[in-house]
Amino acid sequence: MNSGPTISDIRAAATRIAPFIHRTPVLTSRALDAFCGASVFLKCENLQKGGAFKIRGATNAVFSLSPDEAARGVATHSSGNHAAALALAAGWRGIPAYVVMPDNSPQVKCDAVAGYGAEITFCQPTLPAREDGLQRVVARTGATFIPPYNDVRIIAGQGTAALELCQDVPGLDAILAPVGGGGLLSGTAISAVSQANPVRVFGAEPAGADDAHRSFHAGRIIPLEKAATIADGLRTSLGDKTFPIIRRYVEDILTVSEDAIIVAMRFVWERLKIIIEPSSAVPIAALLEHRPPGRHVGIIISGGNSDLTKLPWIQ
Amino acid sequence: MNSGPTISDIRAAATRIAPFIHRTPVLTSRALDAFCGASVFLKCENLQKGGAFKIRGATNAVFSLSPDEAARGVATHSSGNHAAALALAAGWRGIPAYVVMPDNSPQVKCDAVAGYGAEITFCQPTLPAREDGLQRVVARTGATFIPPYNDVRIIAGQGTAALELCQDVPGLDAILAPVGGGGLLSGTAISAVSQANPVRVFGAEPAGADDAHRSFHAGRIIPLEKAATIADGLRTSLGDKTFPIIRRYVEDILTVSEDAIIVAMRFVWERLKIIIEPSSAVPIAALLEHRPPGRHVGIIISGGNSDLTKLPWIQ
Repeated sequence: MNSGPTISDIRAAATRIAPFIHRTPVLTSRALDAFCGASVFLKCENLQKGGAFKIRGATNAVFSLSPDEAARGVATHSSGNHAAALALAAGWRGIPAYVVMPDNSPQVKCDAVAGYGAEITFCQPTLPAREDGLQRVVARTGATFIPPYNDVRIIAGQGTAALELCQDVPGLDAILAPVGGGGLLSGTAISAVSQANPVRVFGAEPAGADDAHRSFHAGRIIPLEKAATIADGLRTSLGDKTFPIIRRYVEDILTVSEDAIIVAMRFVWERLKIIIEPSSAVPIAALLEHRPPGRHVGIIISGGNSDLTKLPWIQ
Repeated sequence: MNSGPTISDIRAAATRIAPFIHRTPVLTSRALDAFCGASVFLKCENLQKGGAFKIRGATNAVFSLSPDEAARGVATHSSGNHAAALALAAGWRGIPAYVVMPDNSPQVKCDAVAGYGAEITFCQPTLPAREDGLQRVVARTGATFIPPYNDVRIIAGQGTAALELCQDVPGLDAILAPVGGGGLLSGTAISAVSQANPVRVFGAEPAGADDAHRSFHAGRIIPLEKAATIADGLRTSLGDKTFPIIRRYVEDILTVSEDAIIVAMRFVWERLKIIIEPSSAVPIAALLEHRPPGRHVGIIISGGNSDLTKLPWIQ
């Protein structure tokens, strides 16, 4: 059933990407512990290159290619952080990156992708137009398609964050990670359950985009139809590579209110002095609202890409 | 001439305070390097307990007291972070802390000091009233007065941040630190020039509160009369303990515009995903505006206590 990566694949990814990425710090705070009722360890991927964990999977995928494959470059369609991460990783290997982006993408995202040296092809902002645009680019260039999350190499790369966390903080009882497409959560789960003392894993999701929660309990992928959440990184459905891993290794998917997301986000900005995006506040909110079992809890802070001119606690 | 602490005092302080404080991470960023035209290493005291370096000096002072002195407690007058840091450190030693605060202090600061268990005495918001209030408290309790910066134990404690930075990043050419009362800068300077390969030290100050710059070049302390800067932590005059150390070991005091402070602050929030207070943006702005010599430059990020409802780039 499971064609996902093994812990060996994640260990190999960790070695492969180590020369390029930051080994991000794990931060702790007495105030946060008191707030959450547990000893909390934040694995700070917001302090990662590109401001998010995404560079781990992209770098693993790019440096997994054979020389022949690599020479023809990599391609993806994305309006978000995956495209920038892929462009950055391709630049490190010195190969072309081709990105199909919706023509309504924010200028700042286009600038970031172009700034890392990728060739952008614009398309209409629909999934069929994006897939069609990607097919044309691949047909023209021979580039390898690197999907944003539903991919064994990507999952293995994302799992390296939890691997580092388990190395730096032995004896964790549980790890919480946000779940959108499931690349981060599935990789986290493989790393966590493969420890000598296995660590329990929980996914965290906004109640306003609870497709992973519903899929998990229904036993089949229920696509996200409508997302009502400020956690913009989590408005994505699970994939057929990530879902089976999550079903097998994750204990539950906890859903949280928008209010709890904003409270948790502001608490971390104010007390820990780090900028986390709304998606990263979701597992902290889950800890607050659900108090899952465990005294020592790790949290994957997925990223810090937040609009600094629109803060959710300022009307 | 120099009755300041020695590098041995700073090393002793580092050992004394290590069980209580965070060894804060040193963060780097390619984007910041490109922005500043140097390899920049940020010593992140914004991620320190209490959100600032202040806890280093306060903890060193509190744990330097003899058992008899300690039993009678510590006292200070402050409207700012020193009072909270002293209260926190006193709590760790299990001794009383007495704080004289102006009766117009922000509620959030009073709450923080009280929350750490200090006994607050309110006074009128003038320096004579504060000093008079302090004298009464000391006369009544026998507590030891711990000043915010003009004190050998405080200077030694603040110098431990640069000591850690030099240990973690060998081969620095220069270190920049903000200068208000001079406790951080003087401690930093002693640590930096005592390295096997001495590191050059520069102070950084807002042009709108440039008393340290003027004092440095005049050769005598010129008190700050009027402060026009958002860098609220730097609206302080030098003291007779900090000034001679700065004169002796610091190469220059660089002044920066308010615009450069805001640009540097926003850059760090956006690209490094950490919250720094305006005072901490001052040495980065100095790097931008003055390009002091040196390829590898350390910067002491003094703190992250910033009002999250009023961002200087939002009108």
